[in-house]
Amino acid sequence: MLVVQKYGGTSVGNIERIKNVARRVISQHQKGDQMVVVVSAMAGETNRLVSLSREIHDLPEGREYDVLVSTGEQVTIALLALAIERQGAKAVSYLGHQVRILTDDAFSKARIRSIDADKILGDLNAGKIVVVAGFQGVDEKGNVTTLGRGGSDTTAVAIAAALKADSCEIYTDVDGVYTTDPNVCPDARKIDRISYEEMLEMASTGAKVLQIRSVEMAAKFQVPVEVRSSFNENPGTWVTKEESQMESRLVTGVSFHKDEAKIAVREVPDRPGIASKIFGPISEANLNVDMIVQNVSSEGTTDLTFTVPKTELKRALLVIEKVAKEIGAGKVESSENIAKVSVIGLGMRSHAGIASKMFTTLARENINIQMISTSEIKISIIVDEKYTELAVRVLHDAFDLGKK
Amino acid sequence: MLVVQKYGGTSVGNIERIKNVARRVISQHQKGDQMVVVVSAMAGETNRLVSLSREIHDLPEGREYDVLVSTGEQVTIALLALAIERQGAKAVSYLGHQVRILTDDAFSKARIRSIDADKILGDLNAGKIVVVAGFQGVDEKGNVTTLGRGGSDTTAVAIAAALKADSCEIYTDVDGVYTTDPNVCPDARKIDRISYEEMLEMASTGAKVLQIRSVEMAAKFQVPVEVRSSFNENPGTWVTKEESQMESRLVTGVSFHKDEAKIAVREVPDRPGIASKIFGPISEANLNVDMIVQNVSSEGTTDLTFTVPKTELKRALLVIEKVAKEIGAGKVESSENIAKVSVIGLGMRSHAGIASKMFTTLARENINIQMISTSEIKISIIVDEKYTELAVRVLHDAFDLGKK
Repeated sequence: MLVVQKYGGTSVGNIERIKNVARRVISQHQKGDQMVVVVSAMAGETNRLVSLSREIHDLPEGREYDVLVSTGEQVTIALLALAIERQGAKAVSYLGHQVRILTDDAFSKARIRSIDADKILGDLNAGKIVVVAGFQGVDEKGNVTTLGRGGSDTTAVAIAAALKADSCEIYTDVDGVYTTDPNVCPDARKIDRISYEEMLEMASTGAKVLQIRSVEMAAKFQVPVEVRSSFNENPGTWVTKEESQMESRLVTGVSFHKDEAKIAVREVPDRPGIASKIFGPISEANLNVDMIVQNVSSEGTTDLTFTVPKTELKRALLVIEKVAKEIGAGKVESSENIAKVSVIGLGMRSHAGIASKMFTTLARENINIQMISTSEIKISIIVDEKYTELAVRVLHDAFDLGKK
Repeated sequence: MLVVQKYGGTSVGNIERIKNVARRVISQHQKGDQMVVVVSAMAGETNRLVSLSREIHDLPEGREYDVLVSTGEQVTIALLALAIERQGAKAVSYLGHQVRILTDDAFSKARIRSIDADKILGDLNAGKIVVVAGFQGVDEKGNVTTLGRGGSDTTAVAIAAALKADSCEIYTDVDGVYTTDPNVCPDARKIDRISYEEMLEMASTGAKVLQIRSVEMAAKFQVPVEVRSSFNENPGTWVTKEESQMESRLVTGVSFHKDEAKIAVREVPDRPGIASKIFGPISEANLNVDMIVQNVSSEGTTDLTFTVPKTELKRALLVIEKVAKEIGAGKVESSENIAKVSVIGLGMRSHAGIASKMFTTLARENINIQMISTSEIKISIIVDEKYTELAVRVLHDAFDLGKK
């Protein structure tokens, strides 16, 4: 078996934990598996580096910022390789440019284009454990690039795809993917298997266990991914292609997040092309819009509501107030006290009634739904922030997701 | 003018100091000079990394150790480049492999073979300030290598040589090279100009202001080097080829260090080839012998005394006690309570009497000389450690090195 393992920041957060990772890896290697290990920066290290740069620049970014933050992973690969050698096995560490993790040149959010698999395969065949720095790559010109927060997940999946590995194990500080956040629902259940599509929706709507792009890449190259804990031997959650047994479930999980704010533009003249007049400037300003709802028109005008990340609310309001004036719309309102709660499941495709059950459940608790957005396997709603945990708990119950 | 500047760990020890370096560099750039800046790791950073690795391995070394410790300089180049850009100039940072600072593969003590000057010259001609990571390089196979402690000095001089720079300025936390350590002799004087040969002897015998190899390289490629402080605007010390004005001085400086230990082998049979029988195994054990003295033979035996670094004394004794038995020598004695004091000056070449003045001066203070070793422009003696400062002061006085 050829296995790619990825250990996150808490799993390599101090020297004892790094030694523990070395032990795990060597023990699996001794059972005959070929091992590639991708690691993140030690917990806290990336924040330390970012803080240093913030003392120089309010919003550090670009080429030099990537040179800076990529050092965290470099420290970890060296320490892990030293620990593996100290425990008697052979190891070699690689930086992004050394196994040519070629990316585009979008600093701090680069995308992987290709990886030189031959060098890694050569080392594996020579009996070495290969340790690769996550999160970093190199562009055509030889500049250091990074993949964005959580990018080590994507590095691991990309390497697994390039090596045609049998599996990619993502080690973290939780046991796997849960039906919802166990801090909110103590009876949340670990999911044994979940499809790429469901995982994508879970990750996009608030579950933070995997970086979204790593799931996209796993789906594209059909890499079986297991999310599990580095602190115990419990089996984790397999993220794989859709399987027949999955279909029996209606709903797989409930996710939520509180990072968005809502903007409403009142009395928008209801004529063709008006939406692009509004969202054109928003997109030019590089603002990320998530949900958009347009109410039915009355008397020639309509209300347009959408959400943006809270961190971008101020910038978005500046843009939108200008636009509203230009198109002769009414006033612009905004609120930060909202939360998005989502119900996800492959079963929605073939079963009607999920939405109505969701709305009934919330109504019973007098929770008002402010916006609704759906995809084939997901229903998201916006509610007042103070109802977040209550909404998650009653939905988790209603769809029977808790422990038996 | 094309100027290479190197800033040491204390000069970039925190963000304020890095901003200050950016200001200095930009101000000189604005005067029309082309600027290449080589930087060390922030003070304390390399020690932090070494400590981490020591938690894994008593004596960490080799390929992975170099991957680890080279991150310190990477952090500094990124922060300095960000600071320069923040202050409005254009900057680009380079790691060892990006400007192909090609070295041999002797990890942790690699030697530079060549540097790709074209890339740097291209950036300089485009008006950019080029920031290069000191201390690190890359071998033929693309492995990260490091040059040993103080290696950033060598990086700077090597780049200056490759670019045919007009000068190489080494910024540190002292004003230049002094006639001796000002902590020992408060009237020690800053030297305005010193020859490569003298600087080499000063560095080899205890003056820590420049890495020895950087001076060798400066001499080889005739790079004019100025050692000066990053905390003021005072002119520093120029290290250059020998000039006529230098010859008028008899003695340039007095240096000392306390890092050596002495080993004496008594009653060594006095026959041809006996020295190689002793020093062969010493060299095979990779022990660094500094001074060697063999006393005049009496009754067919001789006493052999030599010094090794204190850190290597234990290992050396193990080797030498075995050898002594094999060759039928007498007992082996050792002492750590010694110091080496050296007097250096081009004038020694043509002026007799320096040695006798040195010995007379020490005799007047009842300081016993245990060993003597001389080169063309240097006399070193070993004395009891407790006399170190006294010996330095009386010699500094005797050769009139103090402030006028």
